[in-house]
Amino acid sequence: MKTALSALGQRTAPPAISWLIKYALSRPKLISLAAGFTDNATLPVEISRKLLDEILRTPKTGQPALQYGTTAGEEKLRQLTASHLQKLDGGHDSAHAPEHTIITGGSQQFLYMTLEALCDQGDIMLVEDPTYFVFLSILQSRGIKSRGVKLERDGINLAHLEKLLERLKKSGELRRVKALYLVTYFQNPTGATTTLAKKRAALKLLKKYERAAGHPIYLLEDAAYRELFFAPVAAVCDRRSSAHGRRSQTATTETPPTALTLPGAKARVIYAGTYSKPFATGVRVGFGILPEPVYTAVLRIKGNHDFGTANLLQHLLARALASGDYDQQVAKARKNYARKAAVMRRALAEHFPACVEIWEAGGGLYFWARLPKGISSGVNSKIFQAALKNDVLYVPGELCYADDSSRRKPDNEMRISFGNASEENIRVGIARLGAVLKRFA
Amino acid sequence: MKTALSALGQRTAPPAISWLIKYALSRPKLISLAAGFTDNATLPVEISRKLLDEILRTPKTGQPALQYGTTAGEEKLRQLTASHLQKLDGGHDSAHAPEHTIITGGSQQFLYMTLEALCDQGDIMLVEDPTYFVFLSILQSRGIKSRGVKLERDGINLAHLEKLLERLKKSGELRRVKALYLVTYFQNPTGATTTLAKKRAALKLLKKYERAAGHPIYLLEDAAYRELFFAPVAAVCDRRSSAHGRRSQTATTETPPTALTLPGAKARVIYAGTYSKPFATGVRVGFGILPEPVYTAVLRIKGNHDFGTANLLQHLLARALASGDYDQQVAKARKNYARKAAVMRRALAEHFPACVEIWEAGGGLYFWARLPKGISSGVNSKIFQAALKNDVLYVPGELCYADDSSRRKPDNEMRISFGNASEENIRVGIARLGAVLKRFA
Repeated sequence: MKTALSALGQRTAPPAISWLIKYALSRPKLISLAAGFTDNATLPVEISRKLLDEILRTPKTGQPALQYGTTAGEEKLRQLTASHLQKLDGGHDSAHAPEHTIITGGSQQFLYMTLEALCDQGDIMLVEDPTYFVFLSILQSRGIKSRGVKLERDGINLAHLEKLLERLKKSGELRRVKALYLVTYFQNPTGATTTLAKKRAALKLLKKYERAAGHPIYLLEDAAYRELFFAPVAAVCDRRSSAHGRRSQTATTETPPTALTLPGAKARVIYAGTYSKPFATGVRVGFGILPEPVYTAVLRIKGNHDFGTANLLQHLLARALASGDYDQQVAKARKNYARKAAVMRRALAEHFPACVEIWEAGGGLYFWARLPKGISSGVNSKIFQAALKNDVLYVPGELCYADDSSRRKPDNEMRISFGNASEENIRVGIARLGAVLKRFA
Repeated sequence: MKTALSALGQRTAPPAISWLIKYALSRPKLISLAAGFTDNATLPVEISRKLLDEILRTPKTGQPALQYGTTAGEEKLRQLTASHLQKLDGGHDSAHAPEHTIITGGSQQFLYMTLEALCDQGDIMLVEDPTYFVFLSILQSRGIKSRGVKLERDGINLAHLEKLLERLKKSGELRRVKALYLVTYFQNPTGATTTLAKKRAALKLLKKYERAAGHPIYLLEDAAYRELFFAPVAAVCDRRSSAHGRRSQTATTETPPTALTLPGAKARVIYAGTYSKPFATGVRVGFGILPEPVYTAVLRIKGNHDFGTANLLQHLLARALASGDYDQQVAKARKNYARKAAVMRRALAEHFPACVEIWEAGGGLYFWARLPKGISSGVNSKIFQAALKNDVLYVPGELCYADDSSRRKPDNEMRISFGNASEENIRVGIARLGAVLKRFA
């Protein structure tokens, strides 16, 4: 007898790092620099307690929080989200409209539904090379193809994007291209931040190829880590910086505005944001802003998924934003991550061999380490195995590359997270990893 | 220029009752007997406040609640769910295994993911005729066909199910049939409860046709309203009961066990449950229990949707279940709905013409009213329009029927909810509706 599973049900692969996490749990002494978890110590336990107590103190505020809401999400939270984004974007008059905003179960759910709304099996997404691996998992599950665009420290390589679009046009595949997916702030996994100039140029390039595609090509901007900046964002860094020469970067003073602020954005930019990473990952509230007709399609899909994100969480976030507790919490988280990133930076300088190139982020949760070409840090490599034996875990960079047969997947990189590990564990973990690298690199 | 939307994105229709809800909001004096909302007054405001305060009082319990969890859901909540179901099922040793349980964003998300895992476009789901309309929306969106099985007051008509399976076998379509979907307790929309005998017989019938299908055919049991029983469940009711002769039903003393307790269930029954309806609809926590290989497929899909339901909500439910607060809350809700159902029963007896057949549920949130054949209560009917003009809203029964060209959709029925309306509004609403019916029926 055959399986009753659908093609999707049969095809969907296990998550790239589920076995990593299982492995981590089975070795109690293992130091995980792999997980994208946030820091336990800074979670807003007291703030959440206070705000929930306020919400549930009276039936007047408590009952609506415990009742169904609307599919798009709480009106008040959508309004607060719009003004919050406007503030982050420096007051730009832009496409931040509550009526094009949808509240979702983390931004992950938003990404999933957006791909459902846009892509048929066989369609093509353009992605950064490397990119967020759970996004790649959605593509894999849904039979959506992907093409990688070279990533630099200030965003994608525009010449490569243009060459790619031109090639897709010539091969007749451009009509299958639906969007370019960019993780624009302290990217997972590299920590790279995309400049506004690059967003502008990318949007323009996509527009240029729309006629040949026969339909709009969207810029899908994922800003998950946006608020977790803790240092001035490193500006254009085309030159390589080694583990021992990382401090000479020029810097700007704030994160760049979103693509929503660009001309033409209202029709072509889809923005994915979240409150989970900056506030609390156990409070899964994300959001998306979309132009029509994608907004209506995603809203209808959301109606079928769950007809609305849990109201209690939405009321908690709305109150946190309105009271200022949210800003206070994010400021605290930033300070904490800045300290932990500094600990990691120092440990890397001390323990990693000079041949390893480090991409040091000005925010987010990750450092990106590149070994010299030809030395593998992949899942089956000696380095990864030796690291495990020495009780330290990282995410092999190869897991973050799309399945794109037009290039070989680089396997000489590592995502190293300082999000969840303690300062002590960061120091010990990096020392262990450094010792392994010195042995093999 | 064409749209960039996927086939799914283009196809997905607006939710069946979104315009009803909008309509309701635009007429402040309108009494809605349409919404499936639960009762505001019984929502567990005080209990939630107490439990959340306990959880967030110390970092030790607060931090895990505000951190990411696992994709399958909190181990403790899955264990409590298993023992809770075992208790409801009268201690049966059964397929209630935490390792086959997944916690989801309401049972709606679980239904969505299960359909993703099982059905390709063009596949067939067997459904009750009528059935839960948001389930039909998922089918519509995903291009899944449906065939209706006649519904009686104690569950589907088994002879009809067999005839249908036989017909599908002969037409060669049986290989597209993946599951039979039954809302087994106080069904939405009819209030019907399926007997265990019917579940057993249905499971056996499905099994019988598997060889011809070439793959397993699952029984998907949706028990959303299971815990909201407030009266002994009406037993076999093949005879019609009119609005004026509703009180002579024989009754059993508790809800029937789930299909999970049946022989063969471990391999073929998929169970959808929820804590949202009985506890709080603003706390969206549902769950599913599935056999392999569907469990693994759904788990991977959940990984792509959101890699886990908000932990804070899961911790709240786990604590409510463990402390007994959950049981206490459900008992309170039952009492309240029993009272409101009684108010509606009396109002119906007083105001509805005798020709209207009422299916009175022993639980859930709905009564089902059937007008004599030939009298339409559908969306475009004089009755529905007159009801709106008189500021009372119900759900036209035709919205709850699958698109199945082998029969005409009945349009002479109404779903009338006592869930959200106040007792006074139930009385006034039913009086208004009765006056309309007397005019047209």
